[in-house]
Amino acid sequence: MASRQLHLGAFMRPTSLHTGAWRYPGAFPDSNFNLAHLTAFAQRLEAAKFDAFFMADHLAVLNMPVEALKRSHTVTSFEPFTLLSTLAAVTERIGLIATASTTFEAPYHVARRFASLDHLSGGRAGWNIVTTSNPDAALNFGLDEHMEHDERYVRAREFYDVVTGLWDSFADDAFCRDVASGLYFDPERLHVLNHKGTYFSVRGPLNIARPVQGWPVVVQAGASEAGRQLAAETAEVIFAAAPDLASGRAFYADVKGRLDRLGRPRGHLKILPGAFVVVGDTVQEAREKRARLDSLVHEESAIAALSIALGHDASRFDPNGPLPDIPETNDSRSARERAIELARREGLTVRQLAQRLGGYAGLAFVGTPSSIADEMQEWLESEGSDGFNIMFPFLPAGLDDVVDRLVPELQRRGIFRRDYAGTTLRDHLGLPRPPNQFFR
Amino acid sequence: MASRQLHLGAFMRPTSLHTGAWRYPGAFPDSNFNLAHLTAFAQRLEAAKFDAFFMADHLAVLNMPVEALKRSHTVTSFEPFTLLSTLAAVTERIGLIATASTTFEAPYHVARRFASLDHLSGGRAGWNIVTTSNPDAALNFGLDEHMEHDERYVRAREFYDVVTGLWDSFADDAFCRDVASGLYFDPERLHVLNHKGTYFSVRGPLNIARPVQGWPVVVQAGASEAGRQLAAETAEVIFAAAPDLASGRAFYADVKGRLDRLGRPRGHLKILPGAFVVVGDTVQEAREKRARLDSLVHEESAIAALSIALGHDASRFDPNGPLPDIPETNDSRSARERAIELARREGLTVRQLAQRLGGYAGLAFVGTPSSIADEMQEWLESEGSDGFNIMFPFLPAGLDDVVDRLVPELQRRGIFRRDYAGTTLRDHLGLPRPPNQFFR
Repeated sequence: MASRQLHLGAFMRPTSLHTGAWRYPGAFPDSNFNLAHLTAFAQRLEAAKFDAFFMADHLAVLNMPVEALKRSHTVTSFEPFTLLSTLAAVTERIGLIATASTTFEAPYHVARRFASLDHLSGGRAGWNIVTTSNPDAALNFGLDEHMEHDERYVRAREFYDVVTGLWDSFADDAFCRDVASGLYFDPERLHVLNHKGTYFSVRGPLNIARPVQGWPVVVQAGASEAGRQLAAETAEVIFAAAPDLASGRAFYADVKGRLDRLGRPRGHLKILPGAFVVVGDTVQEAREKRARLDSLVHEESAIAALSIALGHDASRFDPNGPLPDIPETNDSRSARERAIELARREGLTVRQLAQRLGGYAGLAFVGTPSSIADEMQEWLESEGSDGFNIMFPFLPAGLDDVVDRLVPELQRRGIFRRDYAGTTLRDHLGLPRPPNQFFR
Repeated sequence: MASRQLHLGAFMRPTSLHTGAWRYPGAFPDSNFNLAHLTAFAQRLEAAKFDAFFMADHLAVLNMPVEALKRSHTVTSFEPFTLLSTLAAVTERIGLIATASTTFEAPYHVARRFASLDHLSGGRAGWNIVTTSNPDAALNFGLDEHMEHDERYVRAREFYDVVTGLWDSFADDAFCRDVASGLYFDPERLHVLNHKGTYFSVRGPLNIARPVQGWPVVVQAGASEAGRQLAAETAEVIFAAAPDLASGRAFYADVKGRLDRLGRPRGHLKILPGAFVVVGDTVQEAREKRARLDSLVHEESAIAALSIALGHDASRFDPNGPLPDIPETNDSRSARERAIELARREGLTVRQLAQRLGGYAGLAFVGTPSSIADEMQEWLESEGSDGFNIMFPFLPAGLDDVVDRLVPELQRRGIFRRDYAGTTLRDHLGLPRPPNQFFR
């Protein structure tokens, strides 16, 4: 086997993240609340030896205009803690990563649910720490205005300190359960946190034994300066958003450099960009699959997405023509420039560009098992990433293509495991078990 | 079959609620974090056709003196949402009731997790609404002082209105998923709650389809005036604490009378007192089992419990003698009087009384399958209850005794089902599915 190995997570919505996916031939439009489908997906991913099943999450419905909303299956689905706990019972090895917000949750609850999921799954839990950038979510939690970006990160850091402190409430050997003497646990091996900080006051201890993994694996996705620094200090996996290899390498070098300066070993944080993977018999066939998928994004919601990206009403453009010149606005310049660049590079019509943006427009590998493996290998070997969080374009066929065709090619090349070497998510990712900060 | 039927819930801690249970011969001292044991218990209860598996919960560890704490297995175990979601995957019919606090949770999260559990379990979720009376819990959620009793109930009522409103965000038929037209749901069948109240401001909608049961079953345990009224207005099951049949009948008449005055059918709220059940071949053998179990409560924690009940230091009393006369104090008079009365009635020594209070001292049925069935039938037929939430004295043997010996006796008498008639918890309890308050 090659020395560097890919780590693969599956970043899941039950019907795919692509808003047209529920209309793709063979799709299960009802997957959002159909546990049988989710169970089959998780079991297939485990059979393919994926590191983790990573559940996407949102805390609101109204995060897009209603014209787009009513066309999309992405607005409702199972809640992550409950779903992943159910999947824990029907899988044995695959990691289970849930998203929990540091802005809208209480640290005692979060510490408790992840610790419980870790016990229930035999050490397979991971916590995707998000600060929740969606202002619609604030309105569901009694806040009229969303917390300012940098303040969210200061709060996230304190939240993390409380949660990890609570996980360490009991020493690993605290529970002696000595039937003869009647001592259930050693009170000397119990730590009362007594945290009093800026945002939180939490006495502790947690009412759960120390998790199987010590701490569930900590995952983050922040890409801003504050997000990168928080990740370098605390994360063990970064779910990165790198649009291409050059920017992926720059991000990788930046974050791993931060680890060097913090004295953290580089291997203790895995960088796994999200990647949309479409497999075909030929590159052309894969592209046709993607074009067909994009064409299933309804024009109303596609044009709405394009208008948002451009900061300009796109409904008057000729949908069959090329993108006209757009005057600059005060809206996000980077989204506008990315859209214009994408249209030029792929020669897309206005409709095609709109449907791409309304579906999925980030990093994508579209080709044959061999060509995609080439790309993944290049990312791995040139330090663009330590693997990927794969997003399936449509389900179940898009997942089957990856599991049946791409994974064997990666295994043949010796850059992905043929079997799990251990039992916990930390084992799969090659991460150390954190020592208890209060007990030796 | 008789017209009135018992409903049976199992009120569970993984190692029993009795603090001596982990030391009982044959017990599993490690059940708190051993999923295999919990799975077996849930599957056995389902085979016996129990209405529900009801998970006890606490939001703090330090709710008893450390001398008692270190002797007790009741301070740590799985978190209810994660545990019940896991058990949903390994059971098919039994209801799954989780406790969630209206004082320390956010309604959007609570609405979402119960809706998700209901979808994942095919309509088996129940919400035990608690206002959390434990002041130690407040310290884990940033509150130095616990919210005042009546204010907690006003908040609970608003919390309930928000949660049920969120469950009704989508009409039952909102998700049309019309592949041809690209319409995933009908926006006319989506309700935005826009709740702005005293304690909560929640826009909605919930990002989950309407639960299978419409609403998960609503359970409450409050016994105060405010608690009874909230239950009469909103609950579908009351987990009552009735020390004997006379007080059970008084409670039953009071609450059902409140339903009459509210115009709610009496059958829409089931009153299920907690009952500790110890089965033996003879009444004498059952009593000996209980005495043996009580004797496993360590004297240190037993005396601490007695001192709390009496409002008086009991450590100087002769443990082998009868309870001496106790001067009155400012502490809870009813706990003191109950302890004195119990000691007199059963002729208990100080040690025995202390161990009873340190273990479990509420309503108990201790006898043969036939004598216990007699008692349960009397409660049922004299309107003391609609069934019971059974608490097992020790596990697994105490559960096996109920499942293998008591349940067949109840079935033989025609007062408990031989099989489930439906698939949801509402079906088991004979409760109607609530209509959506915003859509016909």
